Amino acid sequence: MAPETPFPGDPDDSREAIMRATYCALKRYGYAGLSIQRIADEADLSKSTFYHHYDDKRDLLTSFVDFILEEFTRVFSLEAGDDPETNLRTFVRLILDPTTAQKISEDSPTTTVLGTYVELRAQAVQDEAIREKFTEVDRGFEQQIADIVAEGVDAGVFRDVDPEQTATFVSTLVAGQTFRQSTRDDDPSAAVLAAFDDYVQESLLRTDA
Amino acid sequence: MAPETPFPGDPDDSREAIMRATYCALKRYGYAGLSIQRIADEADLSKSTFYHHYDDKRDLLTSFVDFILEEFTRVFSLEAGDDPETNLRTFVRLILDPTTAQKISEDSPTTTVLGTYVELRAQAVQDEAIREKFTEVDRGFEQQIADIVAEGVDAGVFRDVDPEQTATFVSTLVAGQTFRQSTRDDDPSAAVLAAFDDYVQESLLRTDA
Repeated sequence: MAPETPFPGDPDDSREAIMRATYCALKRYGYAGLSIQRIADEADLSKSTFYHHYDDKRDLLTSFVDFILEEFTRVFSLEAGDDPETNLRTFVRLILDPTTAQKISEDSPTTTVLGTYVELRAQAVQDEAIREKFTEVDRGFEQQIADIVAEGVDAGVFRDVDPEQTATFVSTLVAGQTFRQSTRDDDPSAAVLAAFDDYVQESLLRTDA
Repeated sequence: MAPETPFPGDPDDSREAIMRATYCALKRYGYAGLSIQRIADEADLSKSTFYHHYDDKRDLLTSFVDFILEEFTRVFSLEAGDDPETNLRTFVRLILDPTTAQKISEDSPTTTVLGTYVELRAQAVQDEAIREKFTEVDRGFEQQIADIVAEGVDAGVFRDVDPEQTATFVSTLVAGQTFRQSTRDDDPSAAVLAAFDDYVQESLLRTDA
């Protein structure tokens, strides 16, 4: 296990090496302090290598968002099993459980990956290209949740709910907690997770089975 | 009705005049383009009047967040009745219903008050004073929801849920939708509101009454 990043093994290619360096630079300097030079230093690569792959810092960061989503999907696929109920809870906990979040952000509470995500995503209010990217990211994320819910409905574990609507609801909750925990002094995630468990119990699980 | 702002009547004092001018300047220029000079121009006041009341732009904006919360509480108190179920739905819709949001942001989709809120709140990732302010704002907001839920539990309309935990859940959902709708191309609020209604029905309302 590399102690520097949560990514196992060696990077497969220069894109992955750059993405890992971006992760390390974000962790060290935060969003405001991030520069191509600092990422290049982390990766021991030249700035020209970066500009071969990416137009600018914004282009690199939107690609980083894709990379994090791919990593999340990879980790989730390792954890996922046959039970839709467990899968849904695991999916949400991989993002919201504070012990998982702490693993990522042990160095500094203000330069976490979640915080960076919030800072980058807030640029979407004014920036059309970033808005387009996060719309796409959200949809990929929601599709994964909708698939889990649809599987649960088909298996008779969940009620006959609308998978897309349920996925939108759960995604919104996850986005809200991400937004809030990066911008508050405290961390209300325990209450959110407990309430989410109640929601699954009361609103999703079939009780007549 | 003043056509310029959603605030009825004339401002009571210079603080309220400044807050209204801040609202208009945000609507016109967005967060990035906001300056004390522009707010002063909107309010027809001198910059020195501003610095009599506020230390800097950040101080003014955190005060603006308080003002918006007060306005929200005022509007909600006008709409609220005796029925906790209706009150909870009204509270959430006052923020999330797209027709209400459009009323505020008819001029430009990128300079909405919700978008400004997201941009300002994202500063909290790096800024301790802003983080403290939003923690306080969240708590005031959650307390209002907890009071409605507690009233519903007492009246036997809602199940014997924990009002604080329920308030955290609902606040997180509202924060998530605010964050998402300001940073996406589309607006998934219809699906979120439909899912919220199902949540109230399935998880909150007593069915054995």
